[in-house]
Amino acid sequence: MEKYAIGVDIGGTAIKFALVSESGKLLYEHSLATEAAKGKTAVLDNIMSGVAFLLAKNSVEEHREKLLGVGVGVPGVVSLDSNTVKYPPNLPGWDVVKLGDVLRERLLSEHHLQKPVFVENDANLAAFGEASFGAGRPFSDFIMITLGTGIGSGIIINRKIYRGTTGAAGELGHITIDFKSDRIHAGIRGTIEGLIGQKRIVEYAKQLAASRPTSKLFEVCSNDLDALSPKLIDQAAEAGDETAIDIWRWVGNILGAGLGAAVSILDIRKFVIGGGVAGAGEFIFGPALEQLKHYTLHSMHDGLELIPAKLGNNAGVMGGAALCF
Amino acid sequence: MEKYAIGVDIGGTAIKFALVSESGKLLYEHSLATEAAKGKTAVLDNIMSGVAFLLAKNSVEEHREKLLGVGVGVPGVVSLDSNTVKYPPNLPGWDVVKLGDVLRERLLSEHHLQKPVFVENDANLAAFGEASFGAGRPFSDFIMITLGTGIGSGIIINRKIYRGTTGAAGELGHITIDFKSDRIHAGIRGTIEGLIGQKRIVEYAKQLAASRPTSKLFEVCSNDLDALSPKLIDQAAEAGDETAIDIWRWVGNILGAGLGAAVSILDIRKFVIGGGVAGAGEFIFGPALEQLKHYTLHSMHDGLELIPAKLGNNAGVMGGAALCF
Repeated sequence: MEKYAIGVDIGGTAIKFALVSESGKLLYEHSLATEAAKGKTAVLDNIMSGVAFLLAKNSVEEHREKLLGVGVGVPGVVSLDSNTVKYPPNLPGWDVVKLGDVLRERLLSEHHLQKPVFVENDANLAAFGEASFGAGRPFSDFIMITLGTGIGSGIIINRKIYRGTTGAAGELGHITIDFKSDRIHAGIRGTIEGLIGQKRIVEYAKQLAASRPTSKLFEVCSNDLDALSPKLIDQAAEAGDETAIDIWRWVGNILGAGLGAAVSILDIRKFVIGGGVAGAGEFIFGPALEQLKHYTLHSMHDGLELIPAKLGNNAGVMGGAALCF
Repeated sequence: MEKYAIGVDIGGTAIKFALVSESGKLLYEHSLATEAAKGKTAVLDNIMSGVAFLLAKNSVEEHREKLLGVGVGVPGVVSLDSNTVKYPPNLPGWDVVKLGDVLRERLLSEHHLQKPVFVENDANLAAFGEASFGAGRPFSDFIMITLGTGIGSGIIINRKIYRGTTGAAGELGHITIDFKSDRIHAGIRGTIEGLIGQKRIVEYAKQLAASRPTSKLFEVCSNDLDALSPKLIDQAAEAGDETAIDIWRWVGNILGAGLGAAVSILDIRKFVIGGGVAGAGEFIFGPALEQLKHYTLHSMHDGLELIPAKLGNNAGVMGGAALCF
């Protein structure tokens, strides 16, 4: 009789839900708008409504026996006891919420289910998902990097999430590699998120394309450079466009230099890379690995590897379920 | 009946020895030339001769009862089982040595003592010394930074040494903060060790002094700028010399930017700072803490602190003994 758990991944715009078996099978999925702007109560109601949708797939009796719990990812810092969310920047009006307690109580009052609820930072949860069911499975220690609007990361040490002193560990996007840079992002000079966050990549692509009128970048965006996106840049790169390949090389070079600090500090050699921008794959990974070797001691090059994430957008919900197993 | 242990700290030029009580009292100390250039056998003989010197303070019977073991620090990477030393850069001819086994066997054959021997990287050992008996005692998580010829570091997480995947963790000196820098050190561009290693500090001091003829730096070195040292720069700073204070501020600024990566990755807020250069104290620590806040997220500023190390040159031997407790 295989047990299962519910994973919830709260994003700024959508909440994802999944019922996941202990062996990592996605039994049912669901998604709802977060409606973050409507405030805390609306979001909490949406969470419970998605959970109810999945619970309706089985009887309460079956859940009593087989449901191990609910694991929830939030975009913000979570206390070390996996309960309290503090000032999530993209969830207005939340301040400090004992989300674990709230959901536990509502599960009991609304569904007569007394089950544990674990809350975790979303980047950590994605890392744990990849560790449990994805590209990180072979490794006891790795860092998951999510390249998207921002650069998120989660650290897995000894197959567990490394949370740090207060629960805020893994802010790799905010590592400075250019301490005299004019580019300040989230208050910090020359960070990798500031240098190669998605917005900045598109900006750079537009600049570079402007100076190379024969680039296929014009084709993929129908001559509207404002419509450029990582996906379109990738399309041009796949078609062999040198300008697009140069853009990804530039991204890889900066990423590699940034990951150097993580290798030097933690002696972790494996990076699992996901997120929208990571779709460019080897166009980024190749240059990044090469640069990473330039920014680490020779004695630490053994086993250095950048590995594409496997679970895509499901890493969070899979990680949420995995917290319960 | 208080037990004790022997701590050994192998440096490039000298080996330090100490018999330390469980409560952290230095009962006896000793020091010998390493004679690294004479090769492995000579160094091993020197280690055993220093250990013999301390053992002679008590009878074999007393040691059988009270000696808990020997903890040895080496300047190089040590395997995760605290036994094997690999290619220590400043110990020519060592290659790969099972130092733990070798010393254990010699303790038995030469002194009829069957005791555990633990081998550890010297920077990690200094951190563990400060964690056990020094400035790190109040903190379950901190990073020890040694500012000297190089910049060494050891990471303490949950009151234990964090060794990383292969035992090489804690190379904070090799973090890059200026990835386009012309300054390449140990093969890496723009690292904090390359930017503020002792040699570079003195170089910078000489340059700055040359442009400020009224600086007290000329006085402390009797007009021979080639004789400048961290100690003399500190002397000038203590006497209120603005140029010397500027030098330490420059060191602190770079150190602070470098430590930012450690805070962002590990969410560790405490740094214990030791080593010859750290003698400058607040002249460095003040600017470093200020800059550290500029290179970390605002949400991670709580509790950030730079604390002077307490054990000085004894951190290593104290840490060695502490490994046995």
